[in-house]
Amino acid sequence: MPTSSSFLLRNAIVVPMEGRKEVFDPGSVLVLDGRIAAVGNVDEIDHHPAVGAVPTLDLTGHVLIPGLTNAHLHSGLLRGTAESLALWEWLEQHVDPAHRALTEDIAEHASWMAYTECLRGGVTSVMDMWRHMHRSAHVADVLGIRATLVPYTADRYDWFETLGTNRQLLESHRTAADGRVRTWVGLEHIMYCSADMFRAAAALAEEFDTGLHTHSSESIWEVQECLRRFGRRPIEEFFDRGVLGPRTVIAHCVWLDDREVQLLAQTGTAMVHCPCSNMKLSSGAARIGAYREHGVVCAIGSDGEKENNNLDILQEMKFASLLQKVSTLDPTSGDPWDVLDMATLSGARALGLDDVTGSLEVGKDADIVAVDLRALHFVPVMHGHDFNAPAHLVFTASSRDVTDVWVRGAHLVSGGEVLTADVAAVATGAQAAADELFRRRRELPPLG
Amino acid sequence: MPTSSSFLLRNAIVVPMEGRKEVFDPGSVLVLDGRIAAVGNVDEIDHHPAVGAVPTLDLTGHVLIPGLTNAHLHSGLLRGTAESLALWEWLEQHVDPAHRALTEDIAEHASWMAYTECLRGGVTSVMDMWRHMHRSAHVADVLGIRATLVPYTADRYDWFETLGTNRQLLESHRTAADGRVRTWVGLEHIMYCSADMFRAAAALAEEFDTGLHTHSSESIWEVQECLRRFGRRPIEEFFDRGVLGPRTVIAHCVWLDDREVQLLAQTGTAMVHCPCSNMKLSSGAARIGAYREHGVVCAIGSDGEKENNNLDILQEMKFASLLQKVSTLDPTSGDPWDVLDMATLSGARALGLDDVTGSLEVGKDADIVAVDLRALHFVPVMHGHDFNAPAHLVFTASSRDVTDVWVRGAHLVSGGEVLTADVAAVATGAQAAADELFRRRRELPPLG
Repeated sequence: MPTSSSFLLRNAIVVPMEGRKEVFDPGSVLVLDGRIAAVGNVDEIDHHPAVGAVPTLDLTGHVLIPGLTNAHLHSGLLRGTAESLALWEWLEQHVDPAHRALTEDIAEHASWMAYTECLRGGVTSVMDMWRHMHRSAHVADVLGIRATLVPYTADRYDWFETLGTNRQLLESHRTAADGRVRTWVGLEHIMYCSADMFRAAAALAEEFDTGLHTHSSESIWEVQECLRRFGRRPIEEFFDRGVLGPRTVIAHCVWLDDREVQLLAQTGTAMVHCPCSNMKLSSGAARIGAYREHGVVCAIGSDGEKENNNLDILQEMKFASLLQKVSTLDPTSGDPWDVLDMATLSGARALGLDDVTGSLEVGKDADIVAVDLRALHFVPVMHGHDFNAPAHLVFTASSRDVTDVWVRGAHLVSGGEVLTADVAAVATGAQAAADELFRRRRELPPLG
Repeated sequence: MPTSSSFLLRNAIVVPMEGRKEVFDPGSVLVLDGRIAAVGNVDEIDHHPAVGAVPTLDLTGHVLIPGLTNAHLHSGLLRGTAESLALWEWLEQHVDPAHRALTEDIAEHASWMAYTECLRGGVTSVMDMWRHMHRSAHVADVLGIRATLVPYTADRYDWFETLGTNRQLLESHRTAADGRVRTWVGLEHIMYCSADMFRAAAALAEEFDTGLHTHSSESIWEVQECLRRFGRRPIEEFFDRGVLGPRTVIAHCVWLDDREVQLLAQTGTAMVHCPCSNMKLSSGAARIGAYREHGVVCAIGSDGEKENNNLDILQEMKFASLLQKVSTLDPTSGDPWDVLDMATLSGARALGLDDVTGSLEVGKDADIVAVDLRALHFVPVMHGHDFNAPAHLVFTASSRDVTDVWVRGAHLVSGGEVLTADVAAVATGAQAAADELFRRRRELPPLG
């Protein structure tokens, strides 16, 4: 296995995802000094002058895709313990008390678990809304994954981060790890934040020339409550509060009417689709096909471990496609190529990172994932007319099929093993942190 | 690893699924001569007189569940090559030509792939609708899995099996492999079969005292076409043709009205829910909660590799739960315990096998699955008040988390490795068979 940041990945099915359905089968990717230097057919790349001077990794039987973006994630430790409730009851009964019981140390263990699990599954870039995120920055730095840190910021409850602590994180971590780690401005749900805070958050993002991330329009109740309180639907209210725009990314967006979709498109606001979460919390089915037709950039996110309960973007793509197909009753919707685009190039675009990642293109950073198609559950692999690698990636593959992951040419996962973390120790640490979190939650004083 | 059919599985989370939500944590299962001799808490089972005389397998960190039933499956080799079409166009363009091009040898490779993939993922009992099924019987016999063989039988097209060949299979394989392999009567979609054939199929099942399996009410088009042709909805037409009853199992049942649900309940007809297939083919969302409330036995099936594209009942459970939650907008629907029941005891009941399998109960055959919960993606594992093993099984686990599978006490999968087949050879053989199938399909003469 090459450990330098210059190497040749040879003889795979290469799916570059640069906006067209072109593939190289068989193909190769040449990486020089951590950047993609050439992508093409095997024979063509074999004649590149740098080949021979760099180590070669034979990837026969694998497919190579761009590193995946998980564009909406919450680090957390509640997996499997917060079930069978609708969004707002679930927040009150499970999530808010966990926020109240959280400590910095527990928060760091949660990020270790989340980022390691993501990386193992081919995610090279996460956007995480969480707390005590200077500790998350440390995790991402060590692990080698790209992380966009978004504090859970609110002013209506005292257990969240504040714009003050968000500013502190911007001052210390606006960019860190040579740009691999970045901080954005976060906004909790609209019910948790005042209108003034929304405006101050937008100003803060502008001041630091950074992004803004929130979640909205997840449940129909939220839309109805927004209409009752403000006389407007959520995205209209967002527009009025000045937070829409090309630096803003909004997760969920399940219940948008056509006017709201147009507002996203007109302002260049991106959205993140979280199909498992939306199904599991009985939120609904976002009209992703319509959003994309309107020109809205649509990324994919797993949401947190507590509302999914996997952080597996390959599995999430299956849910994204199948939810479209069943909710529209249109079997041509949720096309594998479109879903792959959401998890790669559109994901990078939503995060403002498409100049450096999201596709296998010359000049971009070598953020690359290898998926082994030689397992029984991928039979048959067809080439040419019946080419089925995109369908295999979306409908069959899971995180467990990922063998290798590179970020900026650094080999972070090899043969399915994470090289930059002791996964067993991460699991042990996260289990102990969860045990402590549950103990602290049980001992919380009642809310006054 | 114990190779005898008497052994102790010790210190796991034991989820017996005998109709209650009782668990033993930590618990053990004692198997004597291939049958379950004791299930209970570790301390209690340690005092059983037979312990000490049999080998012990320490299953700390694992959960033990009954072997899973995949109650609707088609062996096949089209995975990933038959995409983005609605049911009937998809049948005409992809599936029927593959039937025309099929040979006995290709059919056997398809069953090798399907049954091996199922077994690897914790499925101990499949109901397979396929062709040339004396070859499938051989596969199941060697592999050690339970198989209920259901020929694709129709009389309106000449590429299917006929009631004559179904009768031949009944004569040779009504029961085989000491009862582990059984033959039922099959019926293709109602549009492929005459009313007379339905009646003859019911008589054939009665003659051999065996079951009858078909698929119906999958797409709304099918219901509308049935109304147009016969003046009745499909399940009403089935009733009229005499095929409903306690020996009948119908897959899909997506578009049933209340009268049809009552017909299933009144006649004791079971149904098989195939959520991935129903989503991927844009068929719709079956009202499983209502069916179960009416007393209809509801099992789970993966359907075939071409309409899923996994044969992974652990993943299928996640789809089953989440499809209920999003289609009803009721987060209490799709409860993990209910979905586990569908994949275990109700699955066995649908197949008429609940006297011997489907739960971990004393006297039943030792059809047992171990799932390793020690991986990072299961953190945290909680005991007592926040017990989360059922949620982990339904929302997080996949076939890859299965470590051990026993059928009738025979150890068929150990440490994730199938012991009764050379999986690499199965994959190679299936790939070659698929290549030949696609070549033969390209060379088919046009239909006259």
